Amino acid sequence: MSEQYRIALDAMGGDHGLSVVVPAALKALQQYNDIALTLVGDETQITEALQQHKAAPGNRLQIRHATQVVAMDESPAIAMKNKKDSSMRIAINMVKAGEADAAVSAGNTGALMATARFVLKTLPGIDRPAICTVLPSTNGHTHMLDLGANVDSEAEHLYQFALMGSELAKAIDNNSNPRVGLLNIGQEAIKGNEQVKAANALLQDCPLNYIGYVEGDDIYHGNVDVVVCDGFVGNVALKTSEGLAKMVSSQLKAEYTANLFTRLAALISLPVLKSFRRKFDPRRYNGASLLGLQGIVVKSHGGADSLAYANAIGIARTEVIAKVPQRIHKQLESLLAQRQNA
Amino acid sequence: MSEQYRIALDAMGGDHGLSVVVPAALKALQQYNDIALTLVGDETQITEALQQHKAAPGNRLQIRHATQVVAMDESPAIAMKNKKDSSMRIAINMVKAGEADAAVSAGNTGALMATARFVLKTLPGIDRPAICTVLPSTNGHTHMLDLGANVDSEAEHLYQFALMGSELAKAIDNNSNPRVGLLNIGQEAIKGNEQVKAANALLQDCPLNYIGYVEGDDIYHGNVDVVVCDGFVGNVALKTSEGLAKMVSSQLKAEYTANLFTRLAALISLPVLKSFRRKFDPRRYNGASLLGLQGIVVKSHGGADSLAYANAIGIARTEVIAKVPQRIHKQLESLLAQRQNA
Repeated sequence: MSEQYRIALDAMGGDHGLSVVVPAALKALQQYNDIALTLVGDETQITEALQQHKAAPGNRLQIRHATQVVAMDESPAIAMKNKKDSSMRIAINMVKAGEADAAVSAGNTGALMATARFVLKTLPGIDRPAICTVLPSTNGHTHMLDLGANVDSEAEHLYQFALMGSELAKAIDNNSNPRVGLLNIGQEAIKGNEQVKAANALLQDCPLNYIGYVEGDDIYHGNVDVVVCDGFVGNVALKTSEGLAKMVSSQLKAEYTANLFTRLAALISLPVLKSFRRKFDPRRYNGASLLGLQGIVVKSHGGADSLAYANAIGIARTEVIAKVPQRIHKQLESLLAQRQNA
Repeated sequence: MSEQYRIALDAMGGDHGLSVVVPAALKALQQYNDIALTLVGDETQITEALQQHKAAPGNRLQIRHATQVVAMDESPAIAMKNKKDSSMRIAINMVKAGEADAAVSAGNTGALMATARFVLKTLPGIDRPAICTVLPSTNGHTHMLDLGANVDSEAEHLYQFALMGSELAKAIDNNSNPRVGLLNIGQEAIKGNEQVKAANALLQDCPLNYIGYVEGDDIYHGNVDVVVCDGFVGNVALKTSEGLAKMVSSQLKAEYTANLFTRLAALISLPVLKSFRRKFDPRRYNGASLLGLQGIVVKSHGGADSLAYANAIGIARTEVIAKVPQRIHKQLESLLAQRQNA
């Protein structure tokens, strides 16, 4: 029997909990025959949800009971202190104990990051973990980090993000030399802030394929593989993109449903619009990686549906196969050795 | 004869210079019968360009000779020092001298901001001018500032941006109580940075219609009229939006031109697509306001065409009519008085 990649799912997390996680798990098991999943949460409820989908626990699908749930709006500190038997915590504990190779949760990002950091610890040499996601670009996709785990990042942190993002891109895209860019602003009065300028100096003097400053529009342009920025900036860029995409798609829909003629036009355009939507379907990009930890944790969007959630499981699987934390660790060690010799 | 609003145009600025500014000026003169324009730049070249459009100087269209041009990639410091007879500088000098009510330039943003600040000075109580633009939203539009004039803004600066943006929205939109939001990140590990938290405290204690924190997606959502942020963050959000919009429109075009059937679908969809494009036409949003100065200066996009540039002239006209700098000054004085009494 070939190797199985074991992934623990926080079955109670997210806006929809079991009603999304259970069908997503069943979908992922069909899609990837080399994974085994553990649904972590209320055993009775999980069993019922499985029955509704005419499914039952088995070799590749197990249940781990957890009595608590971290609420979506719960403060990370409270969750850490009072929810030691939450589905989120147990899923991450399983990674720590070696019972799972990765954990996936659609639960509250702050609590997930805090718990993952507390339980798994950061890799030696990493000060702050970062959140990294994939965004579509003209000719493929772009990895962007940090997306909100850190604000007021120092140059050294941005440097570490660059290194982690580069390793993730190598692992996920099978790209041996990903282009890394540092997000900055253009020909304005004052070019960049102090942290970005200092990070630029660090990055110019390192073995990454650093291509220099990039601007906001480069995220979608296809000329860079990894975009590095402070978490405040990255979070704003991501949310701004979500808002614009939502407005554009709702306006396009409004235009097409304005009257009988436009409805007819929509009908005829259906294949075009479907192909367009498929390409930009945010569900295909669901699953953000928590990087810099001694273990693999993937965050699914809180509002993700089962297709999107299954995609996040797929990302966890890819990271397990590629051994992303080990790769980052190895790369860090070699850089530290170089710095000491320099 | 009714009042004429006098606007000086940096005729040589931008990627396309006279070939855009001259037709834009002629367009704007037709569109607004209460404006008079001065084309500032090389007199011979301007006269030739006017002749090409079968136009000539007259009461409402004058030429002011300037011997120099600020290059698009010139450093602001060099431009300030060595280009004292540039079309950009002379246009701003005209505002200072009371010969024009506003200046419009598509020239390099850094040089324009530095020159405007040096010549016109900031309003009393304003530490840093800001750049403000209008972006489309689901049900209208949103003003956003700063867009890159300032990085590392302190709380007090963000507070001043809020005040300036609010006055601009009142003036331009005829909205007596614009909703002002402070751009922040969501339910992530650490909510906001120190400057944003401190600005939030200042804004909660002021007479603006402050609605609290907003996130990146709110820019396009229609639930806020003025979005306030640091220039680094605002510039990234704006450029990210431009990049996403460009990718979406080029991909939509690619889908519609894929084969004979999709071309037919495009033909039938033409009215829908046109109406859609009109609504999001970036040219309709061209013209960013330099706020906080003792005078009106509007920045047109460097690559703007004549329709877009004419829109920037329209924005300058609106600010002249609404007396935006005087309004900001008055509002500042009343806030300062309140603070002293408090």
